Amino acid sequence: MSRVYNFSAGPATLPLSVLEEARDELVDYRGSGVSIMECSHRGKEYMAVQEEAVSNVRELMSVPDTHEILLLQGGASHQFAMVPMNLLAEGQTADYTASGSWASKAIKEAGKIGKVHIAADCGKEIPTRVPMPEELQLTDSAAYVHITSNETISGAQWKTFPKTAAPLVADMSSDILSRPVDVSDFGLIYAGAQKNLGPSGVTLVIIRRDLAEASPEHLPAILRYSTHMEADSMYNTPPCFAIYMLSLTTRWLKQAGVEAVYEKNRAKAARLYDAIDATDFYSGTAVPGHRSDMNITFRIADESLEPVFLAEADKEGLVQLKGHRSVGGLRASIYNAFPEEGVDALVAFMRAFESRHG
Amino acid sequence: MSRVYNFSAGPATLPLSVLEEARDELVDYRGSGVSIMECSHRGKEYMAVQEEAVSNVRELMSVPDTHEILLLQGGASHQFAMVPMNLLAEGQTADYTASGSWASKAIKEAGKIGKVHIAADCGKEIPTRVPMPEELQLTDSAAYVHITSNETISGAQWKTFPKTAAPLVADMSSDILSRPVDVSDFGLIYAGAQKNLGPSGVTLVIIRRDLAEASPEHLPAILRYSTHMEADSMYNTPPCFAIYMLSLTTRWLKQAGVEAVYEKNRAKAARLYDAIDATDFYSGTAVPGHRSDMNITFRIADESLEPVFLAEADKEGLVQLKGHRSVGGLRASIYNAFPEEGVDALVAFMRAFESRHG
Repeated sequence: MSRVYNFSAGPATLPLSVLEEARDELVDYRGSGVSIMECSHRGKEYMAVQEEAVSNVRELMSVPDTHEILLLQGGASHQFAMVPMNLLAEGQTADYTASGSWASKAIKEAGKIGKVHIAADCGKEIPTRVPMPEELQLTDSAAYVHITSNETISGAQWKTFPKTAAPLVADMSSDILSRPVDVSDFGLIYAGAQKNLGPSGVTLVIIRRDLAEASPEHLPAILRYSTHMEADSMYNTPPCFAIYMLSLTTRWLKQAGVEAVYEKNRAKAARLYDAIDATDFYSGTAVPGHRSDMNITFRIADESLEPVFLAEADKEGLVQLKGHRSVGGLRASIYNAFPEEGVDALVAFMRAFESRHG
Repeated sequence: MSRVYNFSAGPATLPLSVLEEARDELVDYRGSGVSIMECSHRGKEYMAVQEEAVSNVRELMSVPDTHEILLLQGGASHQFAMVPMNLLAEGQTADYTASGSWASKAIKEAGKIGKVHIAADCGKEIPTRVPMPEELQLTDSAAYVHITSNETISGAQWKTFPKTAAPLVADMSSDILSRPVDVSDFGLIYAGAQKNLGPSGVTLVIIRRDLAEASPEHLPAILRYSTHMEADSMYNTPPCFAIYMLSLTTRWLKQAGVEAVYEKNRAKAARLYDAIDATDFYSGTAVPGHRSDMNITFRIADESLEPVFLAEADKEGLVQLKGHRSVGGLRASIYNAFPEEGVDALVAFMRAFESRHG
């Protein structure tokens, strides 16, 4: 087998050791005589898996006792609806920050449920960036303030979070657990797993208990945070295999350490941004100071060379470097599990490509 | 490895050959250099998987062109909310049939959205059964008629479906693809995958196009059938690995053939019911003629022997025979992938257990 360097924005590279462990016990889960996929979700084998997944997240993020950890389905897109359905009552206003494509989707969905105020808007600025905490024009007694901690498509990332009187709600899908975060600053954090936590199909929600308890009773049970909190995320059959993979991925992260992974993430990103800034042949698309450590977005001055870049990179085993179809350009997504050697390989390729075509 | 006979009601036994195939290509998907879990859902490898999954279902169920096949998340419990949110407009009435625990959950959730009429109620009868088509007291111009084709907990199953003027909506979670069904008789069919289609984490929805097109615009995008229909179930990142497993499981089913599997299912169930009926030591809990081919529910006349039965069966590699915690008793779930040899082993065990304890 020759493993390629996979820069996919998500579903994304997983730790090789995690994949190998999953393979080795796929048919016979730890001598049980069945696959983990065949285990009853109420049986002891699977229950232990889900408990470990939750406990790993609690430890890795130092989640305080005031907050509950839920494992749901539907990804961030489902949370775009669930957040306002649960937290935005009639007559209230929710503050949203417009920082790019994903924030816009969250705003659009919230607008179907209740009143939305745009507290800052830089979603269409080029080069791309996120709002600065001091720019926010917040509503008095807002139901909550929503931010998108990292814009996967534009490659812009909040470096410091605003301190808000209203509960701060963050879509952290593409940078969860890539850096230390003080969970007590947040009312609700949500993240699709398919970047830093595991495969697609499971959504992590960390919610302050009092916010979950206030879920409106008129909502269908499956759409209420309180339902899932009361049932320990077992109200309905969980996505067992995705949660199993999340348990293995967070176990791997515990061994690595969040602080150490954060340092590596910054170093990996810096190496790529340095390569981009070292020449006029390439240019970064996000404002320095807002540049994402997860999604490095850039262009070639002569844009007609971009398809050539992608084709030649692909041949060298550097795959999925195409920017999102909505914006074009180039994007290297380098989440926690993406190896440093892959960044070195891309930097070397970029230099060689410039020599050939510059 | 010694594989046990796993009678779990779901997540349930998968075909061994499917598990082995998934294991063999788990780390390196068909020479791509990445796991299928790491593939972008917009990339050619994963797109082909999802297309095959949909095309297998269309072929296996002879789904007519009038109906769309969707692969969603959240299981049947999520459909309990989505169905009335999409199909039950203000001023309309939906007819529901009360046949047991799962139908009751569907009824409760629909009641939060709109007006529900109970067209037949045998949900609390003992022995358990489902309504007969001729018993239904239907509403004129009902928005739809909802049935639960197989009650996993009580072990009762609709053998013939009612012909209704309003669209017929069926929760087929626990008997989908276990027998031939004329899809054109239904407006909407939904099923969590974790019994006959694959692992948990993906939900099959088959919906008549005109019904999906009528999804109300005020709903959040993720909760509208039209959103998923227009996006070919790619509105948000799909649960890729669960869909991959569904593609392999349906491929296995194509090789076996639905008619042949149906014959085997009936023979497997008959062998167990015969063993139950052969003696007063055991008794079936569902009315003959309503007995499920998927979930064989029974009791021991001396109920105090049931924990002994479970413990001794477990030691012989016959696992997960406990009835649902809400009703107790014994239950053997024998979906498509459950081997005939496992049924023979259970029958032999039942006879031996009676000899020892009868």
